[in-house]
Amino acid sequence: MEKLIQMAHGGGGRLSAEFIEEEILPRFGNEALNGLPDAASLRFPGQKLIFSTDSFVISPIEFPGGNIGSLAVHGTVNDISAAGGNPLWLSLGLILEEGLEISVLRRMLDSLKNAAENCGVRIVTGDTKVVPKGHCDKIYINTSGIGEAIDGFNFGKARLSDGDCVIASGTLGDHGMAVMSARHGLNAMKELRSDSAPVHRLVQSISEELRPSVKFMRDPTRGGTAAVLNEIVSDSVSGITLCEADIPFAPGTRAVSEILGLELLNSPCEGRMILICSEEASTEIIRIWKSLPEGANSAVIGRVNTEPERVTIKTFGGGKRLLDVPRGELLPRIC
Amino acid sequence: MEKLIQMAHGGGGRLSAEFIEEEILPRFGNEALNGLPDAASLRFPGQKLIFSTDSFVISPIEFPGGNIGSLAVHGTVNDISAAGGNPLWLSLGLILEEGLEISVLRRMLDSLKNAAENCGVRIVTGDTKVVPKGHCDKIYINTSGIGEAIDGFNFGKARLSDGDCVIASGTLGDHGMAVMSARHGLNAMKELRSDSAPVHRLVQSISEELRPSVKFMRDPTRGGTAAVLNEIVSDSVSGITLCEADIPFAPGTRAVSEILGLELLNSPCEGRMILICSEEASTEIIRIWKSLPEGANSAVIGRVNTEPERVTIKTFGGGKRLLDVPRGELLPRIC
Repeated sequence: MEKLIQMAHGGGGRLSAEFIEEEILPRFGNEALNGLPDAASLRFPGQKLIFSTDSFVISPIEFPGGNIGSLAVHGTVNDISAAGGNPLWLSLGLILEEGLEISVLRRMLDSLKNAAENCGVRIVTGDTKVVPKGHCDKIYINTSGIGEAIDGFNFGKARLSDGDCVIASGTLGDHGMAVMSARHGLNAMKELRSDSAPVHRLVQSISEELRPSVKFMRDPTRGGTAAVLNEIVSDSVSGITLCEADIPFAPGTRAVSEILGLELLNSPCEGRMILICSEEASTEIIRIWKSLPEGANSAVIGRVNTEPERVTIKTFGGGKRLLDVPRGELLPRIC
Repeated sequence: MEKLIQMAHGGGGRLSAEFIEEEILPRFGNEALNGLPDAASLRFPGQKLIFSTDSFVISPIEFPGGNIGSLAVHGTVNDISAAGGNPLWLSLGLILEEGLEISVLRRMLDSLKNAAENCGVRIVTGDTKVVPKGHCDKIYINTSGIGEAIDGFNFGKARLSDGDCVIASGTLGDHGMAVMSARHGLNAMKELRSDSAPVHRLVQSISEELRPSVKFMRDPTRGGTAAVLNEIVSDSVSGITLCEADIPFAPGTRAVSEILGLELLNSPCEGRMILICSEEASTEIIRIWKSLPEGANSAVIGRVNTEPERVTIKTFGGGKRLLDVPRGELLPRIC
């Protein structure tokens, strides 16, 4: 019979210990974690550290191109990377629903393990809680992460200037549409996959000489590209105009967005970077990024201008419209 | 009408931004947090860091002596402290249930803010998710924390030797019984309060000269004192014998444990420390701890002996019994 998660798996007694020994240590064991202290002791290589946290409550927990396990790694790795850090260590906080099939949990943990290895980060501390059936939806995961700041980055909206280039590292909105299609059973869309992936190699690929020219980096998750760009121009003397024809969209993603009537620039990515830099630097950054698999579709999608606090988009039709931050629910439980 | 949490408070759009501006920044604002990057950039003072994480799913969220907000600070501060660190920074990951009254959330956040100030830690990064009604129980909180290792501590079960003293920093089991009494409506127990509190000052009070004599420290949370002591003697050549008459128990806590038929040594604390040190050092540590309010009831509660892997207790009646790690559910959702 399928093994199910019981309340006692989170209770601190023998079943808790067995859970750690059978499910956690074989996958994630390392010097810092093995003794199972309540906290990891870590030798820190640098002087400035980057610290980030994210909770993942995505529904469904599996979607084309990933699951909550790999997503929980990519989300935090990408937040650290976008802040200009090299990700080093992650914590893993599990909230499990009583009755969850252990086979499902194992699939998520395997995926999480593989993603962490691919990102070169180690799980060094963790915690598992179990809540009664109906008080969680299968599994929620919190990852918090520590990285080491990469020298030479200096982000700030005050540095934006007229003509700066807005770069997207790949097709936009895939993650949101992949999750929505899984949720609504549009699985026939074979071409549609989440972009869930790490962006740390994109950041690490920016050479020391180019770093001072980078004025902003952010991975566009909840709220999508529109939310990120509006955030950067808020309280700023600059604005941004995107050119719709230049924005890379995957055909399957576009098809689903049209079926569901959703704006792709509000749809989150989980493996893309939005970067703003001087025009001179943009050519070189695009060249470098295009040489990496995760940056193959990178493109300049817009420009900084002098219209304060406005994000606009030049449409295919030749018109121009405001790209506002959406109010209301957007895409719930997308990460 | 009472304001309620909506799905859109976690959606990444305008309501998300308003939530952060109205509820988070006024309470927790600081240099690292104010720009609301996805990750905090922090200047790290030392070379060795301590990293810990805990998710809090306690029910009910308010109990005599605390609530989930203060508990979320104390839990992680104490894990860092027990690992021999000075706590510096916390992350704050909120999972909120749609429909949660904003007044309740504010009470939790105020309490969290006060606890953080009392512990000298800053909230430097955070994340808020909202799940539909029925997919969480009001509020779950993850805190992850970073501390700086205090020089001179060197813990390890291999260092235990016959005659070493087991010290408890105060009455044991209060938190578990306070939560159980709140859950079962035994509120008439006026004397009963959770011990939820930080232990960092207890750790910081141990002078450099005394630190090498400290062989083990752990705050006894889930599974209680019995779980912590069994963990330390597992795979060890040493055992531990407690003396029941020497263990400090609060009268209200003992009364509730008798009503509910629960073993107090399995009941978690959230503001106590179990420390093992040489006999010589124990006198001095007890003297220092008794001079602090949080250590006023500290006492030597047992001794290390040469019976491998066994935790026993000398009872009031003069007998001796095994104190095993309990199987099964223990006290669910106690933290």
